Amino acid sequence: MSLAPKQDRSRATRQRLLESTVHCVATRGWSAATVSVIAADAGISRGALQHHFPTREELVVAALEHMFDERRLMVEAMAPPQLTGAERVHVVVHTLVELYMGDLFRAALQAWVAAAADPQMLEIIQPLERRFARAVHAAAVEHLEVDDDDPHARTLIQTTLDLARGLALADLLSDDSKRRQRIVDTWAAMLAHELISEA
Amino acid sequence: MSLAPKQDRSRATRQRLLESTVHCVATRGWSAATVSVIAADAGISRGALQHHFPTREELVVAALEHMFDERRLMVEAMAPPQLTGAERVHVVVHTLVELYMGDLFRAALQAWVAAAADPQMLEIIQPLERRFARAVHAAAVEHLEVDDDDPHARTLIQTTLDLARGLALADLLSDDSKRRQRIVDTWAAMLAHELISEA
Repeated sequence: MSLAPKQDRSRATRQRLLESTVHCVATRGWSAATVSVIAADAGISRGALQHHFPTREELVVAALEHMFDERRLMVEAMAPPQLTGAERVHVVVHTLVELYMGDLFRAALQAWVAAAADPQMLEIIQPLERRFARAVHAAAVEHLEVDDDDPHARTLIQTTLDLARGLALADLLSDDSKRRQRIVDTWAAMLAHELISEA
Repeated sequence: MSLAPKQDRSRATRQRLLESTVHCVATRGWSAATVSVIAADAGISRGALQHHFPTREELVVAALEHMFDERRLMVEAMAPPQLTGAERVHVVVHTLVELYMGDLFRAALQAWVAAAADPQMLEIIQPLERRFARAVHAAAVEHLEVDDDDPHARTLIQTTLDLARGLALADLLSDDSKRRQRIVDTWAAMLAHELISEA
């Protein structure tokens, strides 16, 4: 048992609120995810929510930070595959693409799209997004074992991540996993050819 | 001079309303683009707007159709380049990627993201988006002069369009044209290699 059960409970509530915010933004959209909706989803009162986050803005900023941190953790936890050559490229590319699927990407997309029409939110989101982009890029460099000083290798990694974003967008409107599989296989083979013939 | 100036004026007003709707959705976001905001942007009264489109839903559906039609016209107008081989692939890929830039993509993205959290809107948008996707795919097949029955060529075209969407998304948060140029050049060279070595 913890000696500080109250702080633990408080931390757990905060965590639950952030997760509910991400979930509500992802599934209901940016403006429909109101404080009341989020409190109901987290199963706590509006008053308790406001104890943690006095304003919607504070909640949203904390949820955005949480969201980007979660996505960075997913990147850092990407297991270095015990494979070499084209097989290794294949596994890493599939893992990178999967990073962009699910609630976290959907919530991030809602935030981006809201930010595109709101300069104040853009200022909050741009640095978080840049931090995330750097973390994903660094993980890709590490797991693909490429030389980050090689401009061609850098461009190939960026292409992989832009493709992943485009595939995630396509998945937004319809479940797209079979088509995605085919495209990712094709790209992984082309990427392996470029990276391996270069080395 | 037209014999039917009244109908012409009415058609011009309707057209202006649809364009204002696309512009307001792209720059202000889905929910901020209200009927009043759109009427003001088009420089007409709310009453005149409601004469053309009695409800916001009718206006929005008409604007979505208009938006997808405009994007299809851009696709169909893609001039067949008087080039062959890798140079031709290069020009076509750049043209395809540019289709996804600007207000039309931004408005479409707002619509997609709103639809992702709204089943009723999803039903309206999915068929429009499918029609647009088919038109872009057909234009790519035609201008790249590939065999659409070849599954590898089909996948390569889909990869090109998913990459274009991902690049458009990156451009949403910051002007990204230099980086995009580099990625598109690299992908065009890889695509040309695949398509030409295949033939």
